[in-house]
Amino acid sequence: MMQSGGVRGAIILGMLVVAGLVATLPMRAQTQPRLNLMPWPSSVETGAGQLRIDESFSILPDIHGYRDPRTSGAIDRFLRQLSHQTGIPMHQFERPISAKATFSFSIQHASKDVDELGEDESYVLQITPGGGSLTAPTILGAMHGLQTLLQLIEVTPDGFAAPAATIRDTPRFPWRGLMIDVSRHFIPIDILKRNIDGMEAVKMNVFHWHLSENQGFRIESKKFPKLHEMGSDAMFYTQDEARDLINYARERGIRVVPEFDMPGHSTAWFVGYPELASGPGPYGIERKWGVFDPAMDPTNEKTYKFLDELIAEMTKLFPDHYFHIGGDEVNGKQWDVNPKIQAFMKSHNLKNNEALQAYFSGRVQKLVTKHGKAVIGWDEVFIPGVPKDIVIQSWRGAASLAQAASQGYQGILSNGYYLDLGWSTARHYAVDPMGGAAANLTPDQQKLILGGESCMWSEYVNAQNIDSRIWPRNAAIAERLWSPQNVTDPTSMYARLHAVSARLELLELTHQKYYRPMLQRIAGSSTPEEFAALRTLTDVVEPVKDYEREKLAPAEPTSTTPLNRIVDAVPLESDAARRFAELVDKYLAAACHDAAMETRLRAQLTLWRDNDVRLEPLAQRSFLVKEVMQPSVDLSALGTTGLAALDFIAKGAGAPDSWKAEQTSAIQQIQKPKAQLLLMPAGAVQRLVDAATKGGSCDVSKVQ
Amino acid sequence: MMQSGGVRGAIILGMLVVAGLVATLPMRAQTQPRLNLMPWPSSVETGAGQLRIDESFSILPDIHGYRDPRTSGAIDRFLRQLSHQTGIPMHQFERPISAKATFSFSIQHASKDVDELGEDESYVLQITPGGGSLTAPTILGAMHGLQTLLQLIEVTPDGFAAPAATIRDTPRFPWRGLMIDVSRHFIPIDILKRNIDGMEAVKMNVFHWHLSENQGFRIESKKFPKLHEMGSDAMFYTQDEARDLINYARERGIRVVPEFDMPGHSTAWFVGYPELASGPGPYGIERKWGVFDPAMDPTNEKTYKFLDELIAEMTKLFPDHYFHIGGDEVNGKQWDVNPKIQAFMKSHNLKNNEALQAYFSGRVQKLVTKHGKAVIGWDEVFIPGVPKDIVIQSWRGAASLAQAASQGYQGILSNGYYLDLGWSTARHYAVDPMGGAAANLTPDQQKLILGGESCMWSEYVNAQNIDSRIWPRNAAIAERLWSPQNVTDPTSMYARLHAVSARLELLELTHQKYYRPMLQRIAGSSTPEEFAALRTLTDVVEPVKDYEREKLAPAEPTSTTPLNRIVDAVPLESDAARRFAELVDKYLAAACHDAAMETRLRAQLTLWRDNDVRLEPLAQRSFLVKEVMQPSVDLSALGTTGLAALDFIAKGAGAPDSWKAEQTSAIQQIQKPKAQLLLMPAGAVQRLVDAATKGGSCDVSKVQ
Repeated sequence: MMQSGGVRGAIILGMLVVAGLVATLPMRAQTQPRLNLMPWPSSVETGAGQLRIDESFSILPDIHGYRDPRTSGAIDRFLRQLSHQTGIPMHQFERPISAKATFSFSIQHASKDVDELGEDESYVLQITPGGGSLTAPTILGAMHGLQTLLQLIEVTPDGFAAPAATIRDTPRFPWRGLMIDVSRHFIPIDILKRNIDGMEAVKMNVFHWHLSENQGFRIESKKFPKLHEMGSDAMFYTQDEARDLINYARERGIRVVPEFDMPGHSTAWFVGYPELASGPGPYGIERKWGVFDPAMDPTNEKTYKFLDELIAEMTKLFPDHYFHIGGDEVNGKQWDVNPKIQAFMKSHNLKNNEALQAYFSGRVQKLVTKHGKAVIGWDEVFIPGVPKDIVIQSWRGAASLAQAASQGYQGILSNGYYLDLGWSTARHYAVDPMGGAAANLTPDQQKLILGGESCMWSEYVNAQNIDSRIWPRNAAIAERLWSPQNVTDPTSMYARLHAVSARLELLELTHQKYYRPMLQRIAGSSTPEEFAALRTLTDVVEPVKDYEREKLAPAEPTSTTPLNRIVDAVPLESDAARRFAELVDKYLAAACHDAAMETRLRAQLTLWRDNDVRLEPLAQRSFLVKEVMQPSVDLSALGTTGLAALDFIAKGAGAPDSWKAEQTSAIQQIQKPKAQLLLMPAGAVQRLVDAATKGGSCDVSKVQ
Repeated sequence: MMQSGGVRGAIILGMLVVAGLVATLPMRAQTQPRLNLMPWPSSVETGAGQLRIDESFSILPDIHGYRDPRTSGAIDRFLRQLSHQTGIPMHQFERPISAKATFSFSIQHASKDVDELGEDESYVLQITPGGGSLTAPTILGAMHGLQTLLQLIEVTPDGFAAPAATIRDTPRFPWRGLMIDVSRHFIPIDILKRNIDGMEAVKMNVFHWHLSENQGFRIESKKFPKLHEMGSDAMFYTQDEARDLINYARERGIRVVPEFDMPGHSTAWFVGYPELASGPGPYGIERKWGVFDPAMDPTNEKTYKFLDELIAEMTKLFPDHYFHIGGDEVNGKQWDVNPKIQAFMKSHNLKNNEALQAYFSGRVQKLVTKHGKAVIGWDEVFIPGVPKDIVIQSWRGAASLAQAASQGYQGILSNGYYLDLGWSTARHYAVDPMGGAAANLTPDQQKLILGGESCMWSEYVNAQNIDSRIWPRNAAIAERLWSPQNVTDPTSMYARLHAVSARLELLELTHQKYYRPMLQRIAGSSTPEEFAALRTLTDVVEPVKDYEREKLAPAEPTSTTPLNRIVDAVPLESDAARRFAELVDKYLAAACHDAAMETRLRAQLTLWRDNDVRLEPLAQRSFLVKEVMQPSVDLSALGTTGLAALDFIAKGAGAPDSWKAEQTSAIQQIQKPKAQLLLMPAGAVQRLVDAATKGGSCDVSKVQ
């Protein structure tokens, strides 16, 4: 999935304007004790007092309500998570069942046998100092309510407690998904499971399993065993494992949509079954990244016979109503050079490769329909005359989605939610499925926009760092898809994200824990001081964004390239750099410069200035540290420049223009990527430089 | 297992003297690039150059050698660990098998069907810049050699590499164990497995599974199902799980010795089978800690019939030759008040409870022998006339062990290796099975001392923090039991331990990773600055030692008491405090005070002095932080005092005696435990205070 950035920029600007005007619910809530809820609910009323949570806490299903088979699992999981979150043993020891539970739990009716798109996921959660209740139409809403309750429980001066509150909540969009590409790098099943736990925590409800690619066919086929035997390097999921995962997800109210990408992105299929391809073969599993020539032969009836049998097998394995057939990025080169295919196109009046792919899509969609399922596919499957129950997943952008909706087709947005592109959380958060062209649709057309999916493409992620590429940023996308459209304040989002991220780690996710061990491997035998110096640097760099990593690669990357460098180890978003930038902006915005803020800025800049000398010995010993010596020198330079700028500002005398020009030019050099990394504080230091040249004294009239 | 400290003190003093006199192998090795080996091998010769480790690395069994069934698992595990350690994908992709592997692997003959005490575990590892070889009599030695190879591979300026070396290695003791008490707190099987991985990494070879206690009977019995059904709160291992664990351990060259503690420590048995007890019952699972009255009835033939059948079942399940029958700490109270038992004692001429327990032990030992196994038990099972194949596990100490050896009995030492007592690594490391009275035994008697076992009693550990209570300290005990007796230098040990600890985390052990999430739970919603302040404090406190925690408990602890306080979260040994003390001692030892060292000391002391103000807001919000406000105030005071001492030292004028007296008295208050914690830098600050009163100027004649 490649994409251009043009449409994106427009949407972001639009959303930032909206964010500036609307006082969102989370902002209002901050005048009371902050509630670390994410996604923010539709309605929150806080009350007086709090419900203490201790070992006497109990939660029991209402005996008059509906007894859902998923209830006991949900309550057990809730108690286990509550134990993790508080350290209080909650579920292990049998306790006398009291006449009245602390918390009642009531469901009105059954959910579907297989969870469907658009089920009622609402719930009402009431907490008083004496107890509480959770009510929901079905177990789906009740499970969301349990997650909200977990997020409300905080450590307080008097023990763990949840504040008195009434929360009425329902999602804005019915399709809130996370796609994981397990094909470019294989991701073991236990890692998928803990990510599904994470999805449950932030109320996402679709796990999109990208199972096939040029680099791997990852699911066992009993009908065509050479698919996984020859197309996976022995890294695939058995059907039993898949069934187990589907059940695991269902227990958490999460649908599983499998993707079999065709007719392109399918080289791994051809290793075992070269007859499916449009070129002669033989084929090997692709080791490189990008778009490749091999594509299925849409003119061969045997292709459809094969797909009919495979779809029959896989639609039995995957119970969800939707079946993803991919459909993206066919370059058509094999079709162009195959005389039989060219003859077919002529005889069937197919004018170009798009038309040929549309023909293929149409045939495959009929097969999916024949087996009782509906198709979801990337933008390219949207072709004239396609059945109306199809879902378009838009990697191209909002315009493409709006166009489909205007013609009566359902769609979900993924453009803007590509987790692999290294965007900041705020940038993803500003992307709205109703943004851009969708804002101009009629209300009925807007209903066709079902939600969105974040996408974790895996060229540069593996089992070790994947959690850190998904979380915590995915929680903010989950909020975008669940919460009211006017919940857009990034400051509130970051504050709540900080708390949610810590809790996600208690669910066994490793998005914070992975970091230090990876740095230790890079550092080898280091003193604590050297290691601290390495971390001071790595805490303020980020991998280059979008598709820059390919362009700046020292050697062509493949699926066997070690992901052990600093670019693989650092988080995609630097909290330390963001906080520094916020402090600089606050400092510069104040009418009179605040001494305490200046002290903090100086401490940070001094640490950076002196860091390179501390790090240098380690760079002599580790090739993986040596790679970042230029960024390290640059960080020292930023420290020196920032301190000089503060000196000018303190004196109140403007810095010479020549100094500004020199520093600005140096910072421009510093802002260029090195070792595929960006040194994030450069922009904020530039703002200090700009301020240093303005001079002028403190305007006391503005001081409060 | 309780113990007194008297004997221990004597041994430590003895060992420290030895450490001061002997130049150990690791110390010599440090003149070359430091090798982070632990346990240190019998013989290490380093050569010139290094073997680069990259994706072309391969290791293949010698086709002429013996093909052990455990070889392919061992090599696969090695490659997986090598991948973790380097980030290079090693095992996932099929690579062409070259004519010559980088590394050859050769075994001479088969190991036993069930690993036995005293098998040859030696190996020879040779590494040259062009390749290498590993040879061993059996797979047991070969597996140890693979672990040594992993420890040799380091990041270098030119990639990952192992230095050229020849290592000939064999263990000093044949019994090198770790005991885990899974009864007081249940420990899930996956956590046991990762600890077994850790044991393999440091060449331990016995996992002692303490399966039954007053607080839980943790293994499924098909013969007597009420044992686990009524005695475990549903927290037990199935026999399938046990078999799986035994196999997992065997794959790693580790024997599994099960323990069924009797006739005391057995209340959990009596919940389902009260007829085994010496008192009337009914019984419930014990929730508190300590020694309890219930004990089996040694006078009832039905007891022996029950035990005969249970031992028949369990000796079938556990293949090891040794079967642990516990035997410790019977208080005899139930026996004293039971007229039937008193009559039996009279009629059998059993003069006291010790004699009655000896009678019981003798009977049980015969049952174990009847089922083809040999007995291991705590000190108390050593009674006159017991068969010579018994092994005594000494919790009482070296004297007790030496006494048994002098009478021809085998034994292992656990006194001094109790991991739950919170001792420093150096203190455990100084304990030697041949120390104390054992040093005076004849060589033949010394051979009866088979080694030792570290013991993880679990009153205050659970699934979340157990790894941190075992590791990394257990690696130093493993070295004591494997390496030559003269390897005793604590400075070398700590340096190597630092590296080994980081690698153990790559084996999924969580002894470092657990810490931050536990602190985050304690902190709740905190700013990064507040969290840093919390960590500054918690990094320099340690839980109280030995059995002080019980004595200082705010309320009587039970098995349902939350382990979520700072005393549960902090590591048992503070690295930061140890490094500070080392720096103070270096600073004070120098003839002229070193300015760079003074700067570092001042930075640390200033941070401490100012920390309480930063932490205070968090203490207002979290009851778990509030608990450490006195230690926080104390740390600030230590900072202030230390800085004042440095001022006096810098001036060269002695501080007044009144100042010294005042500070010393304050530090004595600070050294008293608070919140069951010790503030570790107090001693080093006292040394600064002592130095401050001496005055005098720099003796330039001593300056180099």
